[in-house]
Amino acid sequence: MSGNSFGRLFIVTTFGESHGPALGAVIDGCPPGLPLTEADIQPDLDRRRPGTSRFTTQRQEADQVEILSGVFEGLTTGTPIGLLIRNTDQRSRDYAAIKDKFRPGHADYTYQQKFGLRDYRGGGRSSARETAARVAAGAVARKFLAGRGILIRGYLAQMGDITLSLNDWAAVHENPFFCADPARVPQLEALITQLRRDGDSVGARVNVIASGVPPGLGEPVFDRLDADIAHAMMGINAVKGVEIGAGFDVVTQKGSEHRDEISSAGFLSNRAGGILGGISSGQDIRVSLALKPTSSIRLPGRTVDLHGADTDIVTTGRHDPCVGIRAVPIAEAMLALVLMDHLLRQQAQNAGVASVTPIIPGAVDD
Amino acid sequence: MSGNSFGRLFIVTTFGESHGPALGAVIDGCPPGLPLTEADIQPDLDRRRPGTSRFTTQRQEADQVEILSGVFEGLTTGTPIGLLIRNTDQRSRDYAAIKDKFRPGHADYTYQQKFGLRDYRGGGRSSARETAARVAAGAVARKFLAGRGILIRGYLAQMGDITLSLNDWAAVHENPFFCADPARVPQLEALITQLRRDGDSVGARVNVIASGVPPGLGEPVFDRLDADIAHAMMGINAVKGVEIGAGFDVVTQKGSEHRDEISSAGFLSNRAGGILGGISSGQDIRVSLALKPTSSIRLPGRTVDLHGADTDIVTTGRHDPCVGIRAVPIAEAMLALVLMDHLLRQQAQNAGVASVTPIIPGAVDD
Amino acid sequence: MSGNSFGRLFIVTTFGESHGPALGAVIDGCPPGLPLTEADIQPDLDRRRPGTSRFTTQRQEADQVEILSGVFEGLTTGTPIGLLIRNTDQRSRDYAAIKDKFRPGHADYTYQQKFGLRDYRGGGRSSARETAARVAAGAVARKFLAGRGILIRGYLAQMGDITLSLNDWAAVHENPFFCADPARVPQLEALITQLRRDGDSVGARVNVIASGVPPGLGEPVFDRLDADIAHAMMGINAVKGVEIGAGFDVVTQKGSEHRDEISSAGFLSNRAGGILGGISSGQDIRVSLALKPTSSIRLPGRTVDLHGADTDIVTTGRHDPCVGIRAVPIAEAMLALVLMDHLLRQQAQNAGVASVTPIIPGAVDD
Amino acid sequence: MSGNSFGRLFIVTTFGESHGPALGAVIDGCPPGLPLTEADIQPDLDRRRPGTSRFTTQRQEADQVEILSGVFEGLTTGTPIGLLIRNTDQRSRDYAAIKDKFRPGHADYTYQQKFGLRDYRGGGRSSARETAARVAAGAVARKFLAGRGILIRGYLAQMGDITLSLNDWAAVHENPFFCADPARVPQLEALITQLRRDGDSVGARVNVIASGVPPGLGEPVFDRLDADIAHAMMGINAVKGVEIGAGFDVVTQKGSEHRDEISSAGFLSNRAGGILGGISSGQDIRVSLALKPTSSIRLPGRTVDLHGADTDIVTTGRHDPCVGIRAVPIAEAMLALVLMDHLLRQQAQNAGVASVTPIIPGAVDD
Repeated sequence: MSGNSFGRLFIVTTFGESHGPALGAVIDGCPPGLPLTEADIQPDLDRRRPGTSRFTTQRQEADQVEILSGVFEGLTTGTPIGLLIRNTDQRSRDYAAIKDKFRPGHADYTYQQKFGLRDYRGGGRSSARETAARVAAGAVARKFLAGRGILIRGYLAQMGDITLSLNDWAAVHENPFFCADPARVPQLEALITQLRRDGDSVGARVNVIASGVPPGLGEPVFDRLDADIAHAMMGINAVKGVEIGAGFDVVTQKGSEHRDEISSAGFLSNRAGGILGGISSGQDIRVSLALKPTSSIRLPGRTVDLHGADTDIVTTGRHDPCVGIRAVPIAEAMLALVLMDHLLRQQAQNAGVASVTPIIPGAVDD
Repeated sequence: MSGNSFGRLFIVTTFGESHGPALGAVIDGCPPGLPLTEADIQPDLDRRRPGTSRFTTQRQEADQVEILSGVFEGLTTGTPIGLLIRNTDQRSRDYAAIKDKFRPGHADYTYQQKFGLRDYRGGGRSSARETAARVAAGAVARKFLAGRGILIRGYLAQMGDITLSLNDWAAVHENPFFCADPARVPQLEALITQLRRDGDSVGARVNVIASGVPPGLGEPVFDRLDADIAHAMMGINAVKGVEIGAGFDVVTQKGSEHRDEISSAGFLSNRAGGILGGISSGQDIRVSLALKPTSSIRLPGRTVDLHGADTDIVTTGRHDPCVGIRAVPIAEAMLALVLMDHLLRQQAQNAGVASVTPIIPGAVDD
Repeated sequence: MSGNSFGRLFIVTTFGESHGPALGAVIDGCPPGLPLTEADIQPDLDRRRPGTSRFTTQRQEADQVEILSGVFEGLTTGTPIGLLIRNTDQRSRDYAAIKDKFRPGHADYTYQQKFGLRDYRGGGRSSARETAARVAAGAVARKFLAGRGILIRGYLAQMGDITLSLNDWAAVHENPFFCADPARVPQLEALITQLRRDGDSVGARVNVIASGVPPGLGEPVFDRLDADIAHAMMGINAVKGVEIGAGFDVVTQKGSEHRDEISSAGFLSNRAGGILGGISSGQDIRVSLALKPTSSIRLPGRTVDLHGADTDIVTTGRHDPCVGIRAVPIAEAMLALVLMDHLLRQQAQNAGVASVTPIIPGAVDD
Repeated sequence: MSGNSFGRLFIVTTFGESHGPALGAVIDGCPPGLPLTEADIQPDLDRRRPGTSRFTTQRQEADQVEILSGVFEGLTTGTPIGLLIRNTDQRSRDYAAIKDKFRPGHADYTYQQKFGLRDYRGGGRSSARETAARVAAGAVARKFLAGRGILIRGYLAQMGDITLSLNDWAAVHENPFFCADPARVPQLEALITQLRRDGDSVGARVNVIASGVPPGLGEPVFDRLDADIAHAMMGINAVKGVEIGAGFDVVTQKGSEHRDEISSAGFLSNRAGGILGGISSGQDIRVSLALKPTSSIRLPGRTVDLHGADTDIVTTGRHDPCVGIRAVPIAEAMLALVLMDHLLRQQAQNAGVASVTPIIPGAVDD
């Protein structure tokens, strides 16, 4: 119950199930005067949309967004922006066979235990389909942030054993894997093909970077920028790990090695990932996530039914062999929501009486 | 500004600077009727307290907690519990030399950029000393949870290159490193001694486990249990990475390998770390954090002063060579706060009309 | 910006403008297992709906609600309930004449000052039409509360100089004025007819009563039940005053006269209006509101235009001569939302260790 | 449980019981750089303080405030401001006689029903003594607002049948009644003397006015400025009614009579009380409250004991015969907290892209 809103000042509330009539989001707190039409939102939805390549789920959804409110004569009015996406290709019959069983590794079991009942069609609200609403809301934040010079970009950094470099940002939009290392795309294709054949799935790592972020965003102690990013990222379906900057590599680093030294020209490195003490430093913000392999696979597994009796399960619906791929636009959207919220919070502080002027230029080493 | 409260129903607000008059916390939302005295809180504070061994900072603080409100005749009343810890051993003169400079890797720079001024004495509120207030509040949550059979325990899992097993929970309290692998303690001592000699510091990994957690805690979509844990953990000073269950290992796992199969006797493994779809499954909750090496080290580093001019800096105050050590009770406290909050939230749902009964026993494989 | 959500655990977010594509609400926090269909909501919308009699606005709106999510096989699932109401009878041309002027007594001016732009069609989001979304959400809360024996009813207590008694609850649904004093209905009709002729409007008083409320709802200090009711009621368009129980009559009362004495059979009077110290006592909760006359009237008034130049204004659109009439179902809905939220909050406390048993039966004197 | 915090961006959390060790407040969200010492807060506490005249309770409390955090070198730092007020004159023995009985009209009964136990000494947290913490926090807000030209002032407008004019703001500080109608002070003295003799109490009306408030504060729909004021005021102990502007007089007003016409020189009247559509108009904000007579009186009354058995009660502790008197500084503090919060929220919006310029000068008719 509850928990479906995100943010303090730029508040996004999502609703909708995978196989219900519609998905949607309400954005409360968007500043007035932002030019906004459906055409600003649709491209991000299209990037996340299923059915666009043979490497993701074959469900066909147009994911057409309709703006229901909050925009007048092409400008946001400062009132809530209602966004609606109708579901069109629900094949609920796919789920009849598993309605009384729990897929291992899936939220089936915990939803049943929490709520006492569940919408078993496509996972209901636990489906990654819910993230379409987040992506739609994130597109609004991204448009606002772009006007402030803040750019948020993600890419697939690893799939299974295949590690992928950040060689070419432009390439990310030219393959269905959000891969910035175009020479590796055939390897990715081969792996997905093999997984489909095996009826199995695999995990992935996604990196997201925000550049142009001003220093000063983030609120110590609990609402730190890194804490809010971790909250946002761990809240994406299938994410099991989050890193900022050097991440888990810090465990073996010395202090003299980890710290980013500073010169009048800017920071000399960025192991911190752009955040110190929970507050943005002006350097690029660097985030990395680990996504588990989807649990909806064709290989049979042991499980129980609604009555706790032992049984086996096979999932034959349309699923992504690697949910990490389509997580790229979702992670971008969530990072945008966090930054948008903290930008507004920092603006509130600027009601203050202290004068804040930049001390050094932004990062030199990103 | 703001951001110093944690939780939705069990709300903890902390205040206080490292070198100000006092630290404290207000707990709003503790159920009435819980037996509570200072003696329930002091042991956790003593575990986090500085100056207890030569392997952590030499600052001497009694960290005596006083309950100011919310308890009557030995029982909580349901009203806010005010907790006060006076500072006693502030040696602010240590900081005169660095008041106009920014320690690389420290929050000095970002606080200055955010607020336009800062309490430079010991890092002010960015000091890990603030976490004493969290530990005090966490002790109240832990007492309540213990009454429900929920046990939260942490240990040091790695320091630099030294990896540490979970061999013996009892040993954790018998060495100053929260180490459950007692044979390795001499290695840890040697490493700290070397770091002190070098004027350097090192990172660490801490693991925290909650057992006895009922299924059903956590709120999809944004306030998922794992998302709230990530928020809590990334909000601890120096943390740069958070994992739930298999964490970043999922990147290379297959779906058939990662999923925890289920039998009528319980789950057959726990790679999920006790959370599926953001909701507790009844298995142990397993969390792992990476803590960076402290940035306050004696080795000189390049930085700038308040005016942006290039300079060098050396930090000679009393600091932990490995902040990860004392992070163990802090991580336990934060996990307790998350679970306490979600326990109350789930109780609110039980106002509902759906009947929720357990389907399988808890974990069998933990 | 923001501020369009209501509640802490049963959270209602509304969106939509008077002349935009649609209105709607998202309910986050409805317990699972509640039987719910559109037919549970539509009757309350029909009671608030415009165009049903010649005594309110002549705008014709079907106000058909669609449930977009959160219900599966006829039961709520514990996930957000999306509610959609399409606008159908927007006659925006009515507003062309006043788009650059501010109606005195209307939100035109303050919206313009706050946001720098505004949707001038029918007041945009400041229109009472927005309350349709609140009524829809309130209907869900009312259904849940009814299952707990909590009944919420309102009536028109005064229109202009015509004071109206609570003689007959059943009569409320049998006249277009929500009047429980049927003999006075012709007087009300005559007054409205006269106001239409004059192009003027008039204020009203509405009373709302909740019975069957258990003792113990409400959270001292700030989130008191009466404080939250005041917040809810003053947030209804046109409300300028709120009273609980004896209300402003307390100013001249003595303590010996005001206090409700108690016997083993229950309270002996109910001047408190069912709330003591911000917490429900188990007696009926009694609330009274004052609604100002609508500012959209045909009589010309002095005002300024967008550039601050003096001008006159006449409003010729379709408006209620007494907005207080249709406020009855809105006030009922808002009271339902407050009680629903506090019921869930109190349920969360019952995770506590204190045993709470009723001391006396409910009210005897209501 | 919970509910002891106020505000969204300028968040005040209070703690403490009437007869516990201390009261206090934590302010989270005060902008950095505000000059602040205890001397800024103490005068407001002294105005609310008991024992200063023979017309209020004879309890003697120094109410000395200590700033525990959030201020460095005389300036706020943007971190939480901890405020502590030790209790010194608790005479808990006064309460032994009534510990097992419920005072009619008092929160005794509802606290017991809510929490299952209660601190019966002086009402515990339901005591008006808790408001000292609010006044302390309000003083910080008032100082900030004063720097923006916003002035908040209250006065006693009625006590029992004695109505009091606003003749002279300066007089308010020169009598113990906060009376702006100095000729009436002897009447007030006589009434209090008579009430003390009779062992009875009486109600009161308090008016509070904020001037210098910029247009644009307040968030439609739910977090309207008037709704938040109503919430704040109804949350003050003993308040049973709240009015904005013309208040309940609107019930009999015509639209042509109520609306405040506008000219290029400003508004021509202020029946709205400075708020239209939930947003400040730039005119004076006018609020009026009704406070019930205190229920702690010497005249015996019927009640029940903890076991529900019939009994009588007499309250002999030290109490105010008219709690409305000392409510004046409390109401000022609460209005300051509301305005401070909305000022910061509006500042957040100014991150927006719409240009907002004032259209007319402020009020001309206040």
